[in-house]
Amino acid sequence: MELSWESSVEESINAIYLLFSAYLVFAMQLGFAMLCAGSVRAKNAMNILLTNVVDAAVGSLSYFLFGFAFAFGEGPNKNPFIGTSYFALKDVPTASYDYSFFLYQWAFAIAVAGITSGSIAERTQFGAYLIFSFFLSGFVYPVVAHWVWSSSGWLSPNSSPRLFGSGAIDFAGSGAVHLVGGIAGLWGCIIEGPRVGRFDAFGKSVIMRGHNATLVVLGTFLLWFGWFGFNPGSFNKILVAYPTTIDQGHWTSVGRTAVTTTLAGSTAGIVTLFGRRMLAGHWDALAVCNGVLGGFVAITSGCAVVEPWAAIVCGFFAAWVLIGLNMLALKLKIDDPLEAAQLHGGCGAWGLIFTGLFAKEEFVVQAYDAGLAGVQGRAYGLLVGGGWGLVGAQLVELVVILVWVSVTMGPLFYLLHWLRILRISIDEEVAGLDISSHGGYAYNAHEEEDTAPRFYGDYVRMHNNS
Amino acid sequence: MELSWESSVEESINAIYLLFSAYLVFAMQLGFAMLCAGSVRAKNAMNILLTNVVDAAVGSLSYFLFGFAFAFGEGPNKNPFIGTSYFALKDVPTASYDYSFFLYQWAFAIAVAGITSGSIAERTQFGAYLIFSFFLSGFVYPVVAHWVWSSSGWLSPNSSPRLFGSGAIDFAGSGAVHLVGGIAGLWGCIIEGPRVGRFDAFGKSVIMRGHNATLVVLGTFLLWFGWFGFNPGSFNKILVAYPTTIDQGHWTSVGRTAVTTTLAGSTAGIVTLFGRRMLAGHWDALAVCNGVLGGFVAITSGCAVVEPWAAIVCGFFAAWVLIGLNMLALKLKIDDPLEAAQLHGGCGAWGLIFTGLFAKEEFVVQAYDAGLAGVQGRAYGLLVGGGWGLVGAQLVELVVILVWVSVTMGPLFYLLHWLRILRISIDEEVAGLDISSHGGYAYNAHEEEDTAPRFYGDYVRMHNNS
Amino acid sequence: MELSWESSVEESINAIYLLFSAYLVFAMQLGFAMLCAGSVRAKNAMNILLTNVVDAAVGSLSYFLFGFAFAFGEGPNKNPFIGTSYFALKDVPTASYDYSFFLYQWAFAIAVAGITSGSIAERTQFGAYLIFSFFLSGFVYPVVAHWVWSSSGWLSPNSSPRLFGSGAIDFAGSGAVHLVGGIAGLWGCIIEGPRVGRFDAFGKSVIMRGHNATLVVLGTFLLWFGWFGFNPGSFNKILVAYPTTIDQGHWTSVGRTAVTTTLAGSTAGIVTLFGRRMLAGHWDALAVCNGVLGGFVAITSGCAVVEPWAAIVCGFFAAWVLIGLNMLALKLKIDDPLEAAQLHGGCGAWGLIFTGLFAKEEFVVQAYDAGLAGVQGRAYGLLVGGGWGLVGAQLVELVVILVWVSVTMGPLFYLLHWLRILRISIDEEVAGLDISSHGGYAYNAHEEEDTAPRFYGDYVRMHNNS
Repeated sequence: MELSWESSVEESINAIYLLFSAYLVFAMQLGFAMLCAGSVRAKNAMNILLTNVVDAAVGSLSYFLFGFAFAFGEGPNKNPFIGTSYFALKDVPTASYDYSFFLYQWAFAIAVAGITSGSIAERTQFGAYLIFSFFLSGFVYPVVAHWVWSSSGWLSPNSSPRLFGSGAIDFAGSGAVHLVGGIAGLWGCIIEGPRVGRFDAFGKSVIMRGHNATLVVLGTFLLWFGWFGFNPGSFNKILVAYPTTIDQGHWTSVGRTAVTTTLAGSTAGIVTLFGRRMLAGHWDALAVCNGVLGGFVAITSGCAVVEPWAAIVCGFFAAWVLIGLNMLALKLKIDDPLEAAQLHGGCGAWGLIFTGLFAKEEFVVQAYDAGLAGVQGRAYGLLVGGGWGLVGAQLVELVVILVWVSVTMGPLFYLLHWLRILRISIDEEVAGLDISSHGGYAYNAHEEEDTAPRFYGDYVRMHNNS
Repeated sequence: MELSWESSVEESINAIYLLFSAYLVFAMQLGFAMLCAGSVRAKNAMNILLTNVVDAAVGSLSYFLFGFAFAFGEGPNKNPFIGTSYFALKDVPTASYDYSFFLYQWAFAIAVAGITSGSIAERTQFGAYLIFSFFLSGFVYPVVAHWVWSSSGWLSPNSSPRLFGSGAIDFAGSGAVHLVGGIAGLWGCIIEGPRVGRFDAFGKSVIMRGHNATLVVLGTFLLWFGWFGFNPGSFNKILVAYPTTIDQGHWTSVGRTAVTTTLAGSTAGIVTLFGRRMLAGHWDALAVCNGVLGGFVAITSGCAVVEPWAAIVCGFFAAWVLIGLNMLALKLKIDDPLEAAQLHGGCGAWGLIFTGLFAKEEFVVQAYDAGLAGVQGRAYGLLVGGGWGLVGAQLVELVVILVWVSVTMGPLFYLLHWLRILRISIDEEVAGLDISSHGGYAYNAHEEEDTAPRFYGDYVRMHNNS
Repeated sequence: MELSWESSVEESINAIYLLFSAYLVFAMQLGFAMLCAGSVRAKNAMNILLTNVVDAAVGSLSYFLFGFAFAFGEGPNKNPFIGTSYFALKDVPTASYDYSFFLYQWAFAIAVAGITSGSIAERTQFGAYLIFSFFLSGFVYPVVAHWVWSSSGWLSPNSSPRLFGSGAIDFAGSGAVHLVGGIAGLWGCIIEGPRVGRFDAFGKSVIMRGHNATLVVLGTFLLWFGWFGFNPGSFNKILVAYPTTIDQGHWTSVGRTAVTTTLAGSTAGIVTLFGRRMLAGHWDALAVCNGVLGGFVAITSGCAVVEPWAAIVCGFFAAWVLIGLNMLALKLKIDDPLEAAQLHGGCGAWGLIFTGLFAKEEFVVQAYDAGLAGVQGRAYGLLVGGGWGLVGAQLVELVVILVWVSVTMGPLFYLLHWLRILRISIDEEVAGLDISSHGGYAYNAHEEEDTAPRFYGDYVRMHNNS
């Protein structure tokens, strides 16, 4: 039976929209790589660049082989906790899942490990990195994605019955992606402990500046660019008309989602600019970059279901959440070189709550019921009259992610620590990961031949002689 | 009333086209940031990176709150000089303006301040930067955009009656964006004066090279990439068929616009390559980058309405305009670290004139009347038989932009100067903006802890002791 | 006659798909620039950045004027060896070729010279570069593209009759683009000889590390990003339904092509990671980057016609092809600073063979006959039961590209060598191309004015005095 022309048009339009969104999300991996590289010291740049490349490469295979199956596989018995089919893309494409959907979800999966790698930067053995990255993006994250985004997931607003009659609204993953990555990072940096020299003999914090602010800004802008795929792309289809409107459909919501995303990040950036000016006495470019990203992380959950003005509220508080958590981390002597736990964890958690407060009924119905008003009662934001159902579901998602990631990644990091394969030796850390594990530094100054030490043995010899 | 399937398809196609174009235009902001950073000295890199981030963030709020309203708001009484509705996106989406259109226009607005920040780089107080950036992208630019692009704008080729029966054709904004930003920059760098040491005691020019040519090339290519959104995206809709053709429509013109853009930039780059080889004796990579950008700036006005061969003509002269104005600036001791006034101002002005000379009737009718030939007489390029109407309108646009930007930005810069909040002190300038205003340098070499001075006080102490 | 609404929709959808794919392919040029810059020594960075900018600029004009005509021009007498119409885009757009198709093909053409520039980096006169780049992207490459991709090409699977009843399947150009660029590079670096100091007096290899690993990773990710345009974009149209399926069409294949591309590159990267760990004793970030790219190059030929699992096989062997050829090059004292001949030549050749072994019948019919099964017998992969026709055609393409590029580029490089305009002098090479040919270094450290030598004369004087 031939496909109708109308269906072909619909499939083509939605495929273009989803594929190019996936490409943008992939560009975030480059953004992470640059942001991370710029934020660490030059002697560890090669290491963190490699972890970001390897995230993408290892994630491709693990997500292809089983990650996607855990997240979106739906066997005959729909399991609300974990998917059980589509291993190695068996039976894909199906009526609901084409290759473009897999690619889009793959780009999300590789982002999670990228977040966590920031928290444990500058002191982690590369072998340990491979293990946790594989486990996190191949199992821990896909399970959460199944809960929240698969129609059979127990937290999903599309499941039946819905949790508290509502289900959790985590549209593009403040919780499923950012909170997961941030909590994993938090456990990593607690179990590893701070970098050598990060706190002096008296417990006083010593600032360890990254080696290249240009890379930080490059990474921030690339993440912003990619977030236009991450949030507006999460509708998965653009050609869906809303029956109760004259001329609106998902195309309207996709555009509005890009606007809310932009406003939240921009507001958080400006608030951070002036907040840091007051607190630190100067205009702090690096803090502004992290502020912008904090705003994006926070709006990621509610981006599709809130008004533009609410996105400004979201960004305003996201900035203060990040500033506050950074102070707290310093007090608790938690050393996260990228502020990833604070940024992705803290702002991700705020994002879940924010959605519970500000989600607008009309937009919720449009995003989750294609605008079929009246078909079913939907909970929406507490502060805009929607009752407690949604905010309750949001808090449940927040708590279960905290617990799930803690009981999986916590023990894993501890096991690696106990086996003495998690952290590098003090000598190697002082020398830097690049010379001790990756065959040389990332940078070579003006010189004819490479006279810098290229192997850790040479480095040790040189320093023993001196 | 449900939306027809046909309308949904049209809306979806046009939304994808415009949104992804907007994302590309946004990537230009990253391009500017890298170009600017590479072109200044290392001690000011953090400063100019921050200004580019802040342009985007501040521009998001100001353009959302009132900039878009000034540019495209159309109250009941259509005002030809300034828009008066849609503040904070009230009543958006409308039949003509969806969120995607706002996002596209936002990406244009933030570009303007980015241009100007180049002209006053390496010597401007950050507070002053915030003020002029807010004023420029929130008010000065939107008003010009209204004149040229709003259907009620007095310069618009869509208004009625049209200026000189034609209206000015500034398709993607050689005038409205680049000339505006360039003239603002010119006033800024005239009022601030040259950087310390730029001209020696005898008035002889001292070359101040940027610190990183790789960033310049990175920025140039990113701008090229983004220009594919800037110019071809300016049709706003792609699904418009031309009734007098067999198989053409806006999709044809969009592609041709990408081609003319590419040819103009490429030609200008090649001419600059050989021109500088003759004048300076070497193959000058940085000049070629600016040459390419000059070609893009020039074709931006006429990109949609000229033949590919004409784009080559456009690029050829754009290169010489830039080379000539750079010589003139040196003679007049105008110190624009990014050549932004010469490049965006000079080539932008040439672009307006070029369109008046070479716009092809068929393409003008397609771009502005959806190809409905014969409905109304259109003026077109003087050299291809179109008479004086268009070239007159182009010259009027050129002159009014010169005047408008001069009477708004000139006094603003002068006021800031008079209040002594425009330029940093000589000591701070010698030390660099990064250490004096932003808490430290952008780069840290191989070292265990940060032993470089992080606060201006430390820096001053160190230098006093030595 | 007005165009039907249905045709307008089809044209618009296909134009968006092809244009945005073209923009992604263009981003590869930036990727090449960054990869090349990072892989050479700092003293030659400006030179290789300029060659990449000039590739794009010169390629725009040459491909516009005649390259596109040689590749896709089809006069009344269909020439199987070279195209003969559409010079300077005369008569374009046609029913089959719109401007978007030209732009897409232009982005491919400029990539070829970029590949070759890597092989001869750090020692080639800029004038010679201009000549070979113009010849390669304007003539040598377009002719191969005509053979393989024009419907009148003698190697094309769309020609009639087809070579061995099959024609060669080089879907996105492992052969036509990468093998061509790689073989040209091989001749270049053989005729130029190794860089000064690359092999010591005893013939022992001296490692010459690039100056910036961050740029290498930046370039690699940008190339990955752009490859989503290169491979999935090569369908040229996305709105093509397969009559024998329920809901599939080119949109399905486009998505699957993105998946196979990702899997091949990722697999090659992982294999290289562990392979280099075994061989060199450390986790080699730069080798992993090249491994990923090798996987992409190899899958480029068969990306549209193989199953995802086969892409993993493709990537696995691509990694070993690259590792093996790198060892061989070292043994033969061939000095290719970017490994471009090994990577693009070697993995490109493997890609052609791989397609001959693993191309799946169903996918071949979908890609080349729009899924019209049974209309005509198609050869397909030898190992999946498709007989010898396809693998034979693939080997013919491999051999003729070897011969064609050798008999054109070999003599050209030799002529330039004989005229003594190919390679720079030893003194200039030791000083670096940037100071000898481009007016100064790419980087300037923290310093008030530019006290580094800016002209080769100054440099020579300084060194004579010391």
